[in-house]
Order: sequence, then C-alpha cells, then structure tokens
Amino acid sequence: MSEITTRPLILISNDDGIDAPGIRALASALDGLGDLHVVAPITEQSAVGHAITVRDPVRAREWPFKVPSGTIPAHAVTGTPADCVKLALNRILPRKPDLVVSGINNGPNTAVNVIYSGTVSAATEATILGIDAVAFSQDAWGKTEFEASGRWARRLAERVLERGLPSGILLNVNIPFLPFDDIRGARVTRQARGRWEEEFDPRTDPFNQIYYWMGGRFVNLDEGEDTDLEAVESGHVSITPIHYDLTAYEALREMETWTW
Amino acid sequence: MSEITTRPLILISNDDGIDAPGIRALASALDGLGDLHVVAPITEQSAVGHAITVRDPVRAREWPFKVPSGTIPAHAVTGTPADCVKLALNRILPRKPDLVVSGINNGPNTAVNVIYSGTVSAATEATILGIDAVAFSQDAWGKTEFEASGRWARRLAERVLERGLPSGILLNVNIPFLPFDDIRGARVTRQARGRWEEEFDPRTDPFNQIYYWMGGRFVNLDEGEDTDLEAVESGHVSITPIHYDLTAYEALREMETWTW
Repeated sequence: MSEITTRPLILISNDDGIDAPGIRALASALDGLGDLHVVAPITEQSAVGHAITVRDPVRAREWPFKVPSGTIPAHAVTGTPADCVKLALNRILPRKPDLVVSGINNGPNTAVNVIYSGTVSAATEATILGIDAVAFSQDAWGKTEFEASGRWARRLAERVLERGLPSGILLNVNIPFLPFDDIRGARVTRQARGRWEEEFDPRTDPFNQIYYWMGGRFVNLDEGEDTDLEAVESGHVSITPIHYDLTAYEALREMETWTW
Repeated sequence: MSEITTRPLILISNDDGIDAPGIRALASALDGLGDLHVVAPITEQSAVGHAITVRDPVRAREWPFKVPSGTIPAHAVTGTPADCVKLALNRILPRKPDLVVSGINNGPNTAVNVIYSGTVSAATEATILGIDAVAFSQDAWGKTEFEASGRWARRLAERVLERGLPSGILLNVNIPFLPFDDIRGARVTRQARGRWEEEFDPRTDPFNQIYYWMGGRFVNLDEGEDTDLEAVESGHVSITPIHYDLTAYEALREMETWTW
C-alpha cells in the first residue's frame, strides 16, 4: 500500500460531517501542500466530546471529494471523529500521516467548549497516537464562507509541518469571522474560564409526556487578556496549545498531605 | 420544592446505566450519609466521553431504586452522563447538591481512558457547575461484587463532604478489585502516560459489505511510581485530582516566541 513520496501526508477530519462546508474549505485551502486524505463522519457529530464507538461496528465508504486541483481520496465513516482518526490510521491510510487537521468547525471551540468538541477530539486522538495535530474552528455559527479561516488554516498547517509540535501537545485554533485583511494576527492563548448555564425547556408530546430541549447561555468567568475568548473577540487568531493529561498537579501536591 | 434540612444532598450518576450493579452498590454504600438522589442514563453510555445531547430532546422518568434503608428518589434519563447532571441540576433536584458522585464504573478509568470516560464526564460536569464531585471506578471488568469499592467510596465521599475540594478540581478514583482488607490504602496520583493501540477487525456482512469492530490493547508508556496505574496495580486506591483546563502552560510559554 505504501508509496515512495516526499510529500507530507495530511489527514483531514471534522465533526460536522464529511459534506460540511468547513471541511470542504479546509481541504481546498490545503490543496497542494501534501497528499490529502479525508476521513470524516458521514453525519454530523457535534458535541460528541471524545466519544468512541465500542459497542457497535463502524463502516467506511469511499466518498466524492473535490479540491481545486482535482479529487482527493476520502472516506465517510459511521462513527465519531475519534473513530475516524483511529480507523484511518489502522485501516485506511497508506502510511502514517505527517499531520492531522480537523475542522473547520462551524462555531467556536473556546473556553470550556473544548471538552465537548468533536473537532478537538479528532486532533487529540491523533496526538495520542503520536501525530502532530491542529483543530480549527471559526468563531461564527451557520456561515458557509470560510475564506479567511482557510487561509489561516493553511498558514498554521505549514508552520506545524515545518517546525513540529512538542510531544503530547496539539493546537486548538479559533479564527474570528472577519475578512482576511481585518484579522489582526495570531496570539498564543490559554483556555478561558467559563461555563454554560443551562435552561432545559420542557415540552409536552402528543402522548402527554414531558421532554426537554437543552438550551442556555455561555458565561465568561475570565477577565484575562491572554485567553482564547479575548483573542478572537479582539480580532486575533487564537492558538491554544492543549494536552490530554488532565492531572491537576498543584492540587496533587496539596492533597498528598491530606488524610484519606 | 426546597426543604429545610441540614443533611447534605448527594447526586449519584454513572455511565453504565441506572440498573448497573456499580451504581446500585454506590448508592447502598452512601445510604444514610445524606439525602441521595439518582439521576443516571437509562441505557449504557460507556466511552461517550464528554458528549452532550444538543440535537435531540431528552426525557427523564421516575425509576425504582432501593438502598438498605428503603427507596430513594431516582430518575432515568435518555441521554449521556453529562446530560444527566445538567438536567438534574436544572430540573430534577429540589436544591443544589453538596456532592456529585459517579460510578462505580465497571472497569478502570486510569491513564488516557479518563478522556473517553462517561463516568468521569458526569463528575466533570458537576465541577464545571461549581459542585464537588468524585468519579469512582473499579479496576476489573464484568464483576458484580463491589463491596470493598463501596466502602472506599463512602470513606472518600465523607472526606470530600467534610473538607471540600479546591475550585475547579474533581477526583478521579480507581479502586483495585481486592478484598477490603487487602487494599493497602490510598495514594494521590497523576494520570499515567499511555495509549490504546487499536486493531480494527474487518468482517463481511450478508450483503458483502465490510464493517469493522474496534479492538486493541492498552500500552503503558509510563515507568513512574506515582501514577494511577501503578497505584491500583500495587493494591492501592488511586486518587487523581483532575481539571478541565486543557491548556498546556509550558508549551504556551515556549510557543509565544514562535513566529506564526
């Protein structure tokens, strides 16, 4: 299966599904940068977090996928973003990729939203498996325009291919929804503190049973100027280096003195 | 809805489903420690990670739930563990709980498994919402015996109720599957480095189409003696303080000097 090439192999995935405008824009933006291969969910998988499919089998199907220079190999998978990356590496790709990119997500993945994000989970999975990875999200909902975000995605993908990332680290990138020339550059940021305040909206079905729709609003609890939220709000691309070691080391040192 | 009481309110959830032996054992172990209320998924939700249900409504149904002293209020929810905690706080519980406990999980949630764990996500969701929380997992698969784990869960729940946890921190507890007297005490630990090496097993369906079952083995890449894996392997209860700020601060400082 493997072929002799010096071009980097780039795996492209997402959580909005293989036909979402954001992944089409991402692949087009990376056209020519390497050998591209798309492996993405067949249906939308937003807010799946780092779910994997363990109780059911998954299927992969070849899928039409065009970029400006022609068609690229693509597979649609009946599973989560993390499933896509695992299956791509184990069964679909001809060799280990040099880079995994995920997105461009429809909507931001800033602050605590990172932990609910399927877009980020695809990139996290790649990092766990030892491959440099970047998750891209656009700070606006329901847009089909990704031109500026695509140009920034290409630029950052080039940087990561040139330079590499530290072991165990991936980049969570959020791009403001602005014309390219209005974006004020990139900032390295931390995840802002905040939370969703849910309000479940009760309805009554035709059989007189109650069901609930989850709604709510995001509350920013962070005044810092070095956060992902502040960066995108001030017109900057936010680059947050993240990892999957959830240990709270400071608390660990304190708790070692507690009596259990 | 609220009542005057000095007893702590304890919300109990899990990811194995409301009828799993582990959550029955956890509730029984906590019997008498406070006002208990179970809100848990109606079906097994293992490996859902931090998924939330955003595209479909959720439903909650009263459910029979016995502990040694009698019955306790319980609701089964058509959603993920994170949904259960959100819905419980917003619509089901009579007041804000003092503690959220999740588990006892069927199988360990050590090392990288934390990020795939629905058990941990229920506790994480509580922490985001400002409530102390502990996730409990038993280091063995398919057991219906949870006596020693239950005793340790009660002990640690008492400690947390007495002492409280630092803001933004939850405890990920893994308990070895041993007789109570053979457990050698508790250790505060960090998440071990490691990964799953997947092997997708291809099968052919009756229509001649290929599908895959995810399988694989966990590879421990950590020789440290201070890890969650090492603790349970040496017969100790592992207590890992974790958080949901995924920022890799060391990498952040390094990357601030990079040209983007």
